[in-house]
Amino acid sequence: MTMKLHNFFRSSTSTRLRAALNLKGLGYEYIPYVLRDGQTRTPDYLRRNPQGLVPTLELEDGTNLTQSLAIIEWLEETHPTPALLPADALGRARVRALAYMIACEIHPLNNLRVLFRLGDQFGADEAAQKAWFTHWVTLTFDALEEALQDPRTGIFCHGDSPGLADICLYAQVWNNRRFDIPLKTWPTIARIFEALDALPAFAQAAPPRQPDAA
Amino acid sequence: MTMKLHNFFRSSTSTRLRAALNLKGLGYEYIPYVLRDGQTRTPDYLRRNPQGLVPTLELEDGTNLTQSLAIIEWLEETHPTPALLPADALGRARVRALAYMIACEIHPLNNLRVLFRLGDQFGADEAAQKAWFTHWVTLTFDALEEALQDPRTGIFCHGDSPGLADICLYAQVWNNRRFDIPLKTWPTIARIFEALDALPAFAQAAPPRQPDAA
Repeated sequence: MTMKLHNFFRSSTSTRLRAALNLKGLGYEYIPYVLRDGQTRTPDYLRRNPQGLVPTLELEDGTNLTQSLAIIEWLEETHPTPALLPADALGRARVRALAYMIACEIHPLNNLRVLFRLGDQFGADEAAQKAWFTHWVTLTFDALEEALQDPRTGIFCHGDSPGLADICLYAQVWNNRRFDIPLKTWPTIARIFEALDALPAFAQAAPPRQPDAA
Repeated sequence: MTMKLHNFFRSSTSTRLRAALNLKGLGYEYIPYVLRDGQTRTPDYLRRNPQGLVPTLELEDGTNLTQSLAIIEWLEETHPTPALLPADALGRARVRALAYMIACEIHPLNNLRVLFRLGDQFGADEAAQKAWFTHWVTLTFDALEEALQDPRTGIFCHGDSPGLADICLYAQVWNNRRFDIPLKTWPTIARIFEALDALPAFAQAAPPRQPDAA
């Protein structure tokens, strides 16, 4: 018996969870879904996850956990080593704030169902979708780059071991590649991404390395 | 000396933090900002909060904490009573997932700067903005209503004491009033909102009760 990860290779929230599971050294069965084919809108899947979103982590006893950040906090509480959050409350607040900058200010605006909605409601074509996507990445990456000019930033977002903020950063940079957004105006983000990509736990979580990648 | 809450009466993330501070019984100095006048884009404010967003919680020693959910987790760690998260890891995962449904799937799509961007990029008028706003509320409130059909739901989202998910639900329902979205199709959400609104900690956090309300 092992955990089952219901997910999609290109999904940024799925990438976050794969990286967290890898960092914690936890094995899982990979169960892919094709979002465009409505495979997460079936009655069976909606019983696991009423939002019809990926990822869902199915535990050994059949319990389904949803929302990537809630699952990662659960992993941190139930498998505390290695830690994804620092030990001190102020450090934890900083790491969560960096993570939420991405998770609450970029990703929700740029995922596939939002791009589809822009097309449906406003007739947004690929170029308009790219402008929208790039706008939100730029606004928050500019602020994130500034927030990382802090002595607490190390090899990674907070010190020299990877954590929750790095997980969100890594997944978002992969997501940015959908629209070829270069990192050159954000040197600290670029440096941290490269450091993360050199770690097997992250590299093996990257979208192209997944079994359902095209 | 007391904490200072840099915020805006109508901001949903500010409402969350006011409710959390009230629930914890923590006093604070209320410092209002007029978002439309760019008061959160000044160099002084950007030093506190590089995103130029509200809320920011300034601690007694001048430390600035940003991102409402990161601040609430910090409050929970530093002032654990009364608890905003249950004691068991699975319960905590459920409450965080319910909170993130709102914080990561509704609010980011519907805040003021997104509505402005829809106007700027796609010429969205008030009616188009309302359709957009209502779309995202409906999609996630439908799923939230379903997720609340769980025996762990009590008077509030999880059992009979208010917590993190309730804080997000309460703030979002206030936010919905901007576009007069009725709650009648979501009876459990409506019932929980009424129960929360009967608690002084929530009622006193509501937008119209703030000193900068019009």
